[in-house]
Amino acid sequence: MEEITELIPGKLDLIQDSRFFKFGNDSVFLADFTVVKQGETVVDFGSGSGVIPLLLAFKQNPGKVIGLEYQAELVEMSRRSIIINQLEEQIEIIHGDLSRAGEYIKANTIDLLVSNPPYMPVDGGRISKGREKAIARHEIYCTLEDVIREGAKLLRFAGRMTMVHRVMRLAEIISLMKEYQIEPKRMRMIQSGVDSSPRVFLIEGRKGGKQGMRVEPPLIVYSRDGREYSPEVKGIYGGGAYG
Amino acid sequence: MEEITELIPGKLDLIQDSRFFKFGNDSVFLADFTVVKQGETVVDFGSGSGVIPLLLAFKQNPGKVIGLEYQAELVEMSRRSIIINQLEEQIEIIHGDLSRAGEYIKANTIDLLVSNPPYMPVDGGRISKGREKAIARHEIYCTLEDVIREGAKLLRFAGRMTMVHRVMRLAEIISLMKEYQIEPKRMRMIQSGVDSSPRVFLIEGRKGGKQGMRVEPPLIVYSRDGREYSPEVKGIYGGGAYG
Repeated sequence: MEEITELIPGKLDLIQDSRFFKFGNDSVFLADFTVVKQGETVVDFGSGSGVIPLLLAFKQNPGKVIGLEYQAELVEMSRRSIIINQLEEQIEIIHGDLSRAGEYIKANTIDLLVSNPPYMPVDGGRISKGREKAIARHEIYCTLEDVIREGAKLLRFAGRMTMVHRVMRLAEIISLMKEYQIEPKRMRMIQSGVDSSPRVFLIEGRKGGKQGMRVEPPLIVYSRDGREYSPEVKGIYGGGAYG
Repeated sequence: MEEITELIPGKLDLIQDSRFFKFGNDSVFLADFTVVKQGETVVDFGSGSGVIPLLLAFKQNPGKVIGLEYQAELVEMSRRSIIINQLEEQIEIIHGDLSRAGEYIKANTIDLLVSNPPYMPVDGGRISKGREKAIARHEIYCTLEDVIREGAKLLRFAGRMTMVHRVMRLAEIISLMKEYQIEPKRMRMIQSGVDSSPRVFLIEGRKGGKQGMRVEPPLIVYSRDGREYSPEVKGIYGGGAYG
């Protein structure tokens, strides 16, 4: 069943459907971590319901955000979200397979590649029951290596790639990025509380970049009592940070 | 000039000399991060004044800790520290060059390799004035790749390698570890305060290990006001944590 979620109260709406994977904190944190310079062209691999393109187009100032999505129903639904938010000039959704991204988008032209890819290898973890949700959670139609390899092809020299993923796969991601000449430059851990182990992290790499990383302070999701979001997350979710 | 520092008040002493690089928090945090199983053989690459072998031998229960040190004066001084602490049976210091470690220590036999290597490439950063200090800070006699490659040779299958290093070189370290079949398994950021960017991190890899990492909660060095050590660091420095 379809429903409308207020991505930013009173300002930005998102159509979702309970049959599909609903957006989570991770996509919102990735959009917050991703810095778009004015006029840049951004591609979101696996744009789903369109949450990342909508947030980037609304909160920052891209030239164009292109979402690439494999599931036809999500393509159609995200296009309607774009229309109700009057962001048709800023966002385009392409229906297609990211392993053939080079057929839809010219190589070496994109400024920024964003992705919240499926977290689980097909051989690991319980496969979600619904096929639609499984595609978003498991590497059925694309692996981590597909995302990084195909993303690297689209990026111009010195273009950036940002990603959110499980900490479990951190070493694999860094190693794959380096293999495809995306030098890891910036990283941030996401953890429930100050003393918690991070399970998810954000990373940015730069095509052809020089070696040398920085790690930002961790993003703490909950306040000490664990019953409410931290001030930073409240800000990301529509308080002051949205202006 | 020589001086005696109480590594653990009333229990463990360390002879140091102001001409040489004095041990810092990083070595102590690395010794704390490193888990030695009973009876294991440990090698410390670049053991310096002996701080890591002394802490591991005193606080844990290794079979043997072997320190490998290039500078003759430090070899001699660390041997005296071992004697004043009566740890001659647990610790041995070898005078030698780690790029020839295979001549002193049999390959594929070591359970655990520990290292706090020089942080700065020779082409980067101001070279310390004193030659003795420069050797500890800059990659004059060994590079990061030397440490990981030679360490990997000494380790038995499934043996572990722990290291402390600058966050700036994190991607390089992960990539080198993977290149030499040391799979990164465990990592911990070290940061001044809860909201600070970590500058240094701890990492453990396993020879021939399966992919899959975990990241521990950050080690926060100072308490909120920044004027005293955090409870965890107080513990590491000789409070309850030393028993």
